[in-house]
Amino acid sequence: MKVAKFGGTSLANAEQIKKVCQIVMADRDRRLIVVSAPGKRNKEDTKVTDLLIAYAERSLAGEPTEEAKQAIFLRYREIVADLGLSAEIGQAIEAELEEVLANKAGLSTERFMDAVKAAGEDTCAKVVARYLQSLGEVATYINPKDAGMLVTDEASNAHILPEAYAKLATLREREGIVIFPGFFGYSRAGDLVTFSRGGSDITGSILAAAVEAEVYENFTDVDSVYVVNPNLIANPKKVTEITYREMRELSYSGFSVFHEEALIPAYQADIPVCIKNTNNPSAPGTMIVAERGAATNGVSGIASDGGFCSIYVSKYLMNREIGFGRKLLQILEEEELSYEHTPSGIDNISVILRERDLTEEKEQRIVERIRRELFADDVAVQHSLALVMIVGEGMRQSVGTTARATTALAAAKINLEMINQGSSEVSMMFGVKAEEADRAVIALYQEFFGGEEPVVSSSSQAASISV
Amino acid sequence: MKVAKFGGTSLANAEQIKKVCQIVMADRDRRLIVVSAPGKRNKEDTKVTDLLIAYAERSLAGEPTEEAKQAIFLRYREIVADLGLSAEIGQAIEAELEEVLANKAGLSTERFMDAVKAAGEDTCAKVVARYLQSLGEVATYINPKDAGMLVTDEASNAHILPEAYAKLATLREREGIVIFPGFFGYSRAGDLVTFSRGGSDITGSILAAAVEAEVYENFTDVDSVYVVNPNLIANPKKVTEITYREMRELSYSGFSVFHEEALIPAYQADIPVCIKNTNNPSAPGTMIVAERGAATNGVSGIASDGGFCSIYVSKYLMNREIGFGRKLLQILEEEELSYEHTPSGIDNISVILRERDLTEEKEQRIVERIRRELFADDVAVQHSLALVMIVGEGMRQSVGTTARATTALAAAKINLEMINQGSSEVSMMFGVKAEEADRAVIALYQEFFGGEEPVVSSSSQAASISV
Repeated sequence: MKVAKFGGTSLANAEQIKKVCQIVMADRDRRLIVVSAPGKRNKEDTKVTDLLIAYAERSLAGEPTEEAKQAIFLRYREIVADLGLSAEIGQAIEAELEEVLANKAGLSTERFMDAVKAAGEDTCAKVVARYLQSLGEVATYINPKDAGMLVTDEASNAHILPEAYAKLATLREREGIVIFPGFFGYSRAGDLVTFSRGGSDITGSILAAAVEAEVYENFTDVDSVYVVNPNLIANPKKVTEITYREMRELSYSGFSVFHEEALIPAYQADIPVCIKNTNNPSAPGTMIVAERGAATNGVSGIASDGGFCSIYVSKYLMNREIGFGRKLLQILEEEELSYEHTPSGIDNISVILRERDLTEEKEQRIVERIRRELFADDVAVQHSLALVMIVGEGMRQSVGTTARATTALAAAKINLEMINQGSSEVSMMFGVKAEEADRAVIALYQEFFGGEEPVVSSSSQAASISV
Repeated sequence: MKVAKFGGTSLANAEQIKKVCQIVMADRDRRLIVVSAPGKRNKEDTKVTDLLIAYAERSLAGEPTEEAKQAIFLRYREIVADLGLSAEIGQAIEAELEEVLANKAGLSTERFMDAVKAAGEDTCAKVVARYLQSLGEVATYINPKDAGMLVTDEASNAHILPEAYAKLATLREREGIVIFPGFFGYSRAGDLVTFSRGGSDITGSILAAAVEAEVYENFTDVDSVYVVNPNLIANPKKVTEITYREMRELSYSGFSVFHEEALIPAYQADIPVCIKNTNNPSAPGTMIVAERGAATNGVSGIASDGGFCSIYVSKYLMNREIGFGRKLLQILEEEELSYEHTPSGIDNISVILRERDLTEEKEQRIVERIRRELFADDVAVQHSLALVMIVGEGMRQSVGTTARATTALAAAKINLEMINQGSSEVSMMFGVKAEEADRAVIALYQEFFGGEEPVVSSSSQAASISV
């Protein structure tokens, strides 16, 4: 049994939905299908989810909502018509949608917003189920409440509850194809709550874990994950196979293919994830697995992310002071800041954090507190840093990866503000000035993938083809 | 005005003391002289301080002490005789020493131990003063209590009290040469308290800061600091000039020339420190200064230290958890462990600490607490690590130092368990397996100092000659 999830562009119009259904029907193991809300049909288009949010905001503000509502209906009407579904089916689906949009009474602002947003996926799932039925398939829409998708009661940021898995596992027994709307579940009290934005990936991952799927296929609009941002390198090498840990490190630093939280259920249940392209389903895609073959290049991806800053603290004999680091981190915690890394020398430590979290006011207060409470000799904040990461499971076993990377960076005249590589890690991190990040990534790509270097895990390509 | 401190081997016998006095008399600016207790005359010899400790332990244990006492007296009698001082002077000095050794009544164990230990330096200072007088010099022994060396009341681990400096500054006004015993001061209550072992360096540094000396000369038995441990490289390059920060980083990782704490007062008062050789006073020695000239090699020293271990902790999405790092460090703090570094990836962090501090019992408890309280996915302790450090102020400005270092290490087939280099740092740290540390140091020395590389700061050698 396979769980297949389709993203917004895969469901943007009838033509795309037809592709989706062809993909589903091409493999009888694809029995649990998770759908997003219809996405953009072209660059200027608006996603249905954004139309729904606009509607909800107007409604909550007491402004006229008719136009906003019609914009939503129009999208689905077009899809229903172009799929050749009957007017009755269209009207029935629209009536249920209208009921959700109208049902504001008795709901808190947050609950109403979540309910309206979720209607995008929910309606889409109904449409897809109807279309598959029209093709003669045994296909059923299922409501997440009936399916047992029990989540925490955090509006717009739900998390799955452990007890949900047992009931969801029974989806395995259902006959035919089950169409499951992504993005939301229900609290123990029965209220609809959505995951964080883009959370249909999470729904798919949870279902794949629950039914112990042989694979979780995540259909999007790219052929595969690339070893580097295609905006920096034309036609970069593709990643055919990558581990959960590698993917997680790359997601963190700018790879936005897959929702960060979505890997967790699949990872915990050891379900391989396959990133595939709805528009090119015969391409092998990228497999995310627990372990890769050993016969691979040490490096599997290069990424960078800007918007970091560092707080540098020095104090003579700091490292003999028990509790210094803990107190420093406590100050950050009291300012509700999470941090990324803490490279340190003997008498100094730098805390790397996201710049967006550090308001000017917080910065002043933190610097002042470090001086006053920790008696630091020196405190300095450096802004506009980028972190460049090389990720690869095989990296540590291969003596010389660091040498190759730093030599390439030195040749590109990039100064390293910071290096961080811990034991048992699958990544190496370089702190550079933001304006040098792109050049750093390009230099590293050329070193590890340019020229004669083989594509990452090309030797295991056969194994990674999932269809 | 110069403060000159002489170490134990410089005062081991009359011949050495004569050298010391010649050095003192050769420069009229050497007006404040700090002396250690007589050290070893040869490899098999025992330092006077160790004789004193043995005496105090026997005395405290109620065992016969006569033999132990005579061994101490014998050392000073020989020195007094060989210096040609009169029997009266010898008897007077010995009487004062005997009084200290006998004065156990009313003192706590710790106080008695400190008083006896300090007698080594105190007696030596009296002898040196008498000898200089015999040569016609205006020389005075001064007692640290009279001089105002006010310290905290921590037995065998005193620290200077800030208010001491004003009174000590008046030493500047004294006529002739002042001989000051190192290693101890007096608490506010008037009790004698010693610094930590080797603390005569601290006395000298405090005095140099107090009198605003033009230089603090620290006479020992080596010509200079070397860029690497001479046990690993025959005739290594000498360091002619080094900054306080560089020295501190090197002291931390195996350079034992200078007491770790002793740099602080000099550093704070910006007094240059010169490490010189009593047995070869015309050698320029090593200058420790606030800033070095720019025209120097990027690297000024290479050191390594073993006995480290790492606690590796991984947890999926760790970096989104505010307070994770703080809680981890709090567990260590509650176990009274200080740590050295915390290199980290996205979802993992390693804590590097001294192996000697981590008993088996503590290790078990900590691993268990990390699992239970932090819900870590994985906790692993790696033993027998060494930290190899490259230190140099100019390192960060020089693009490519990291590349050279890691390439040299890769060529020597040394696997890097960890790399740590923070912003604004003067050092780069590599974690390697303990058994590979020496090979790593040698490879780095050959890269940065072997072959055609110039001696560190050789270009500024003229400026660094302090006499």
